Amino acid sequence: MKYIETLREGERVSNIYLCKSKQTALTKNGKPYENLILQDKTGTIDAKIWDPNSQGIDDFDSLDYIDVVADVTTFQGASQLNVKRVRKVQEGEYDPKDYLPVSEKNIDEMMSELTQYIQSIKNPYLKELLASFFVKDTDFIKRFKFHSAAKSVHHGFVGGLLEHTLNVTKICDFFAGMYPLIQRDLLLAAAIFHDIGKLEELSVFPENDYTDEGQLLGHIMIGAEMVGERIRTINDFPKKISNELKHCILAHHGELEYGSPKKPALMEAIALSFADNTDAKIQTMKEVFSTVPQGNTEWQGYNRLFESNIRKTSEV
Amino acid sequence: MKYIETLREGERVSNIYLCKSKQTALTKNGKPYENLILQDKTGTIDAKIWDPNSQGIDDFDSLDYIDVVADVTTFQGASQLNVKRVRKVQEGEYDPKDYLPVSEKNIDEMMSELTQYIQSIKNPYLKELLASFFVKDTDFIKRFKFHSAAKSVHHGFVGGLLEHTLNVTKICDFFAGMYPLIQRDLLLAAAIFHDIGKLEELSVFPENDYTDEGQLLGHIMIGAEMVGERIRTINDFPKKISNELKHCILAHHGELEYGSPKKPALMEAIALSFADNTDAKIQTMKEVFSTVPQGNTEWQGYNRLFESNIRKTSEV
Amino acid sequence: MKYIETLREGERVSNIYLCKSKQTALTKNGKPYENLILQDKTGTIDAKIWDPNSQGIDDFDSLDYIDVVADVTTFQGASQLNVKRVRKVQEGEYDPKDYLPVSEKNIDEMMSELTQYIQSIKNPYLKELLASFFVKDTDFIKRFKFHSAAKSVHHGFVGGLLEHTLNVTKICDFFAGMYPLIQRDLLLAAAIFHDIGKLEELSVFPENDYTDEGQLLGHIMIGAEMVGERIRTINDFPKKISNELKHCILAHHGELEYGSPKKPALMEAIALSFADNTDAKIQTMKEVFSTVPQGNTEWQGYNRLFESNIRKTSEV
Amino acid sequence: MKYIETLREGERVSNIYLCKSKQTALTKNGKPYENLILQDKTGTIDAKIWDPNSQGIDDFDSLDYIDVVADVTTFQGASQLNVKRVRKVQEGEYDPKDYLPVSEKNIDEMMSELTQYIQSIKNPYLKELLASFFVKDTDFIKRFKFHSAAKSVHHGFVGGLLEHTLNVTKICDFFAGMYPLIQRDLLLAAAIFHDIGKLEELSVFPENDYTDEGQLLGHIMIGAEMVGERIRTINDFPKKISNELKHCILAHHGELEYGSPKKPALMEAIALSFADNTDAKIQTMKEVFSTVPQGNTEWQGYNRLFESNIRKTSEV
Amino acid sequence: MKYIETLREGERVSNIYLCKSKQTALTKNGKPYENLILQDKTGTIDAKIWDPNSQGIDDFDSLDYIDVVADVTTFQGASQLNVKRVRKVQEGEYDPKDYLPVSEKNIDEMMSELTQYIQSIKNPYLKELLASFFVKDTDFIKRFKFHSAAKSVHHGFVGGLLEHTLNVTKICDFFAGMYPLIQRDLLLAAAIFHDIGKLEELSVFPENDYTDEGQLLGHIMIGAEMVGERIRTINDFPKKISNELKHCILAHHGELEYGSPKKPALMEAIALSFADNTDAKIQTMKEVFSTVPQGNTEWQGYNRLFESNIRKTSEV
Amino acid sequence: MKYIETLREGERVSNIYLCKSKQTALTKNGKPYENLILQDKTGTIDAKIWDPNSQGIDDFDSLDYIDVVADVTTFQGASQLNVKRVRKVQEGEYDPKDYLPVSEKNIDEMMSELTQYIQSIKNPYLKELLASFFVKDTDFIKRFKFHSAAKSVHHGFVGGLLEHTLNVTKICDFFAGMYPLIQRDLLLAAAIFHDIGKLEELSVFPENDYTDEGQLLGHIMIGAEMVGERIRTINDFPKKISNELKHCILAHHGELEYGSPKKPALMEAIALSFADNTDAKIQTMKEVFSTVPQGNTEWQGYNRLFESNIRKTSEV
Repeated sequence: MKYIETLREGERVSNIYLCKSKQTALTKNGKPYENLILQDKTGTIDAKIWDPNSQGIDDFDSLDYIDVVADVTTFQGASQLNVKRVRKVQEGEYDPKDYLPVSEKNIDEMMSELTQYIQSIKNPYLKELLASFFVKDTDFIKRFKFHSAAKSVHHGFVGGLLEHTLNVTKICDFFAGMYPLIQRDLLLAAAIFHDIGKLEELSVFPENDYTDEGQLLGHIMIGAEMVGERIRTINDFPKKISNELKHCILAHHGELEYGSPKKPALMEAIALSFADNTDAKIQTMKEVFSTVPQGNTEWQGYNRLFESNIRKTSEV
Repeated sequence: MKYIETLREGERVSNIYLCKSKQTALTKNGKPYENLILQDKTGTIDAKIWDPNSQGIDDFDSLDYIDVVADVTTFQGASQLNVKRVRKVQEGEYDPKDYLPVSEKNIDEMMSELTQYIQSIKNPYLKELLASFFVKDTDFIKRFKFHSAAKSVHHGFVGGLLEHTLNVTKICDFFAGMYPLIQRDLLLAAAIFHDIGKLEELSVFPENDYTDEGQLLGHIMIGAEMVGERIRTINDFPKKISNELKHCILAHHGELEYGSPKKPALMEAIALSFADNTDAKIQTMKEVFSTVPQGNTEWQGYNRLFESNIRKTSEV
Repeated sequence: MKYIETLREGERVSNIYLCKSKQTALTKNGKPYENLILQDKTGTIDAKIWDPNSQGIDDFDSLDYIDVVADVTTFQGASQLNVKRVRKVQEGEYDPKDYLPVSEKNIDEMMSELTQYIQSIKNPYLKELLASFFVKDTDFIKRFKFHSAAKSVHHGFVGGLLEHTLNVTKICDFFAGMYPLIQRDLLLAAAIFHDIGKLEELSVFPENDYTDEGQLLGHIMIGAEMVGERIRTINDFPKKISNELKHCILAHHGELEYGSPKKPALMEAIALSFADNTDAKIQTMKEVFSTVPQGNTEWQGYNRLFESNIRKTSEV
Repeated sequence: MKYIETLREGERVSNIYLCKSKQTALTKNGKPYENLILQDKTGTIDAKIWDPNSQGIDDFDSLDYIDVVADVTTFQGASQLNVKRVRKVQEGEYDPKDYLPVSEKNIDEMMSELTQYIQSIKNPYLKELLASFFVKDTDFIKRFKFHSAAKSVHHGFVGGLLEHTLNVTKICDFFAGMYPLIQRDLLLAAAIFHDIGKLEELSVFPENDYTDEGQLLGHIMIGAEMVGERIRTINDFPKKISNELKHCILAHHGELEYGSPKKPALMEAIALSFADNTDAKIQTMKEVFSTVPQGNTEWQGYNRLFESNIRKTSEV
Repeated sequence: MKYIETLREGERVSNIYLCKSKQTALTKNGKPYENLILQDKTGTIDAKIWDPNSQGIDDFDSLDYIDVVADVTTFQGASQLNVKRVRKVQEGEYDPKDYLPVSEKNIDEMMSELTQYIQSIKNPYLKELLASFFVKDTDFIKRFKFHSAAKSVHHGFVGGLLEHTLNVTKICDFFAGMYPLIQRDLLLAAAIFHDIGKLEELSVFPENDYTDEGQLLGHIMIGAEMVGERIRTINDFPKKISNELKHCILAHHGELEYGSPKKPALMEAIALSFADNTDAKIQTMKEVFSTVPQGNTEWQGYNRLFESNIRKTSEV
Repeated sequence: MKYIETLREGERVSNIYLCKSKQTALTKNGKPYENLILQDKTGTIDAKIWDPNSQGIDDFDSLDYIDVVADVTTFQGASQLNVKRVRKVQEGEYDPKDYLPVSEKNIDEMMSELTQYIQSIKNPYLKELLASFFVKDTDFIKRFKFHSAAKSVHHGFVGGLLEHTLNVTKICDFFAGMYPLIQRDLLLAAAIFHDIGKLEELSVFPENDYTDEGQLLGHIMIGAEMVGERIRTINDFPKKISNELKHCILAHHGELEYGSPKKPALMEAIALSFADNTDAKIQTMKEVFSTVPQGNTEWQGYNRLFESNIRKTSEV
């Protein structure tokens, strides 16, 4: 991997980059050319394809990963690539971590852990419902593994939605063990589904921004509707469990003013809202501290989410 | 119509009543009999069928309207009916207004007005969507005309949902005329759909109470999901309009703390939330004043909804 | 009209401008001269009268409209006018729209519409009260037509107070038609008077800023007191109606935290507060969207008033 | 004074009582008689005038003080007066403290203290304004001395408005001494005027309840308008001082949600709102403790105003 | 054990009861006797000692456990004990569970579990601090095991403080395992100490009510001060850890409006506040459901703590 | 005193400055030298000690006051001192007002006034407690006189804590005179102690910033604990008074959301919270106005603390 921040004038580079944008323009002579912005995790660089129809220039779109052969030039003080050859590459030829913020944990292992929780569910309807998404729906699985859980705040990286979902599920499993009145199957299903609406609320990387649907409806409503729609495809799915499950999703923000249209009215909805809130807050604090050196206990300034100045704890 | 509050011991009555509840019991001798509570708009009365299997005692369930022949007796100081004959009657044999709180307005005329608004919609997708409920779905129409808009507060009577929906639609139509930027088709569709979730949130009369689904999900979520589900049956319904329509439904309470998971973000959502709030508040005040004599401007005491002592205005 | 932004060095200009400020200064030689800032809707320009006592230099004050004959020069890189002749002009010689933000609607037509609503009032006391301002008090009428309804937010332009008042009156008239319990005369009078306190809360254009009185008392108190003072000049004006009318003015912001010292306690006060809020919010959104091209449905960013990201609706 | 609670059947009583209500009724024979309720500070008693037109029965109205000669009888287990003679008495013939809750302090002495504060004012306009109410307006003075400051909470007794006003004035005078930036004349005038709107907000004793005007406008608006109206009768009263004084009255509740339409924006408005709040809270607590024996430090239960359980302090 | 609700007239009973109150009175003949109220978990009964100075009547006080020999009589329709002999008993002679609400869990086992968590602490200062209370201070241990965690709401029973503390500790231990940035020693110490102030805030059973100190200071302040005072007895206890630990105790209610004088500013304070809130809410719901039959999913009515109607979940 | 802002290149200066920071560095040749920042109330200047071990260079630390002999040079356009001799000076050799923001009032006189209030306390326990700090603890006295009451807002200067404490005490003394139910000894003790926690919450000048302990615990908790700790050293100090005094300190912010863990429950706690709030607000406004010329009544802009635009009052 030849990172963008290391490119120097005069080099010839042959490497895979993410094409963040691609636009056709005209030279002063009226000849069409392509304006690209290429990206990796170290930055972005402008690139030009002066002869788009020449041999070696394959078809591709913005947000594709492309293998380029190019010369590094300088234009108005900034580096630029003069692209000679382009090939759209396949998944597997590159490692997304080189291009995007990615979970520190192994995505496949997390997905496997999550699947094991699904295996442990005993209620046949809830198990079938979960499997219809997380076992049988390969497109869903692929998107779920790749998605973030936020635009910025917490878990805003590839695999973030999965990592947060798995953490919340673990906490809920622990709560189900501690409190016998909790219906474990319902709580785990709710934990696993609670944020799936984020698949539609946020666009995929590298954009990772609120969609029109996300702005208008929000992931709570979207997720509850996704689950409701799938339930209608399962024969005899009990209405009561359906409503309880959707309630847990709707109420998982815990308070009306945080966007839940209902306050938690079931023990599982209470437990889920605490599990979600705990993981979100701890992860947010962890991300704030990610650039603070080990052992540093200086105050980091007022943080709006915590409504307090915060700092790392001394290592006792 | 022989009203319950006029029944006197020794009379024989032959009249149609609403059977509010029906339970089988045993006499001291171990013989089964039926305990009924009969209702009309003037009150309720206990009734007994001592010989349920005799001729003239038809099958019926609680919440059926029944034509009873009975003697008025007295038991422990209260009137009671000794039922001799029972016949379950058909719709059309009785006037629901004799049994339940009913809108003062003509329900069929209101429904006709509402349908005319639908006819005036120009966007083909929204028109088809509205028609699929309000023109083609006869079961839906029947339920919509009969339903209330609330358990108690405002429009808590037969036809109340229709009356409130029509009022909100009228106000929205007026706003669309005043403000050219408003998309009339979207706003009217949203107005007509905004409370349809109440069909599931509240059970039908005479119960008219929150359902399990209503408690857990609320009419906002239920209504948006009903619309979303129907949209999926219409070819090429534009995603953007779908989201905008559902947004208006979700945001129609105007504030997160009133149970909307999203604040109004479109001009139509703003307009709808004001139209809904205006009709709800004025109707509530009207209902509080319903027992205050004309010309009486005494203070009626502190009202929690208005956070104020309220009174009728002097007639200027 | 020769707009300021088109003036070029060497030109001689003869045109009417608004004199935004005027100050006497002394040259290095101790000779008095006048420093002016002239304004039209395209910008401002410095101007000097080097010989204030010469023939052709009439008397005038800042905020007067003046007809100037001047040479365009350049001083320290900026254009400047060397004024040769000045004449204070009369109303009618110029069009305020060339100098200030002005309502898109015809001010006289709006005033005529408002007067017709007053004609429709039946209660003689309310009618006399309204007429004492809007029919007989020519100075008031002139000020009312010229005033804005806000420093910035909504209707912050010449004619804005009239436009907003007319809109609120229209909505209230519609509500009075829908809800028979509403006392139309009271509601319309309250609508027409609700913001007259802004005549004192905000200074006139081109300043259009909060006055000392506005900061200390606010338009709600000022308006109620203006109405109360005038009522005392009308024989036998009923005390009850007087209090009801002033209540509607006091309560028109709907909530204590928005500056109303009383919550709406009468049906008309409720209706007025919704009408006012609806027009204010829709107009605010319209002004935010005024620079967004037709058909553009991009999100415009978080808006504090709406507590939401907002966008134009797609044209269905 | 023969107190009502001491009356016994068979006695003849001759004493002055307050007539709380008076209604004409008919005996079974169609003869008119008068139904009275008489009151003193120990309770109320029914009284009948069986022969209203006989000699010795003077004209009087409800809320008059009357000297009655009557026999004490018993009717349905309760004492009753059979009135033989009635004479409406003049002020001075009775002591209001025998009939109504009255300040523990000497009302005339308090009024004298207040007047001395007015004498100490140096600004001629404020002094003239204060004198126009508190020195020259004998009707105002009489009402002010007799009025309460509240329906129930604090200072709800004869002389209460004066007692509270004097206390607030004393605190403000102290603050003016501590903080040189405070304009003493303005602050004292504002303190003396701050609650005069209560003269109209609450009806006089023995009713002492919210008036229609009080409900609709509130004492803050009423008081500011009373002051504004009087100012217009004083030549050349400076507009700026007028606005500052009215601002202090408007803002004296300190917060919008407590009914002030403006937050305190001047140092005197800040000081007044604290002085008012301090006296109100301490007096409220004192009244709660009025029935708690000396030395008793038991918890008195949750108090809504203080949002806390409260108790008397141990005597250190 | 002979329970109070089973006593019948004519029986002679010999059993240990809790003496809830004891007062000396005089018979009509002026002879002193003792009025007792005896209690067990099935109810209370009046008891009389007619001859307090006779042999067999030992000294005892209210809130002592006493072994009584008495005859069951009836007075004015209620059972009563005529006490013949009384002996104050020692701890160990009775089982408090027969007299007071007691945790369903084994108190000694819970205490043992808690001690094991203390053993697992590695930081020597925190370990010594914990041990100084929970290992070495036998009086403290005894009180801690017996105390409740609340007057009413949640864990309001003997052993409740221990049960709640252990639960919170378990959840915190789980969080420490999930989130490597958490300082486990600090978090566990904070969890174990977080509610020790309740030992002073609430009086011991059977009273279990707020103390004067509890009302005035609250368990948060009391607990932090108890820990601070003990820390000063430990040589070289690091100031930073002391402040962090006290911060976690102060902030454990999570929000200022819930009585924490500081918002959580450390990750451990965040985690503790969630653990505490989760256990409190789940336990409260469990207690509300304690009288609801298994399988019953009816709505239990609006609950103020949850700001919602609540019900048991269906058993999936 | 030779102020820093008057230093000019080429001068030799011999003067006392505050050493704000001191760091050892190495020249390019590897020779150690000292980098200083010196401060007085007119600004700061860089200074170098090129030969730290030479004669005449005494030992000193940052935040010491030092007498320096130095040449004024220029480096990269800024003045700099080349230090030849340094001597750490003793208190008394300099006037802190030349270096730091200092109260306008005489600190010793204020301390004397405060001490007289302590002399007037009659309760022996409270008097001993106060004396243990303010009479006998010379280190405490010295720190108390020098401390500020805030980082920025109000009384953020040397002597500020004393000045604020004295003002609050005066107001409380006045309240105690007005309201006989107030226990003067308790209230004055509470007033004098209410902010002593600021000695630990804020570091001393010239830093005057939140300490780690201040951030984690806050001055309310710190102060209450300081008082509690000292009380334990006084024989037989009554528990009830101890709790009441600590309650007043805890509750002095008046509202939970302002950081008090308890709402005021005693009359003295109410009085103290008003006295504290009054002095804080008036002093804040005074500091905002400190740069506004006399007689200037222009609006100073929106102020977050007052939630209002504010201005000076006209001088009536």
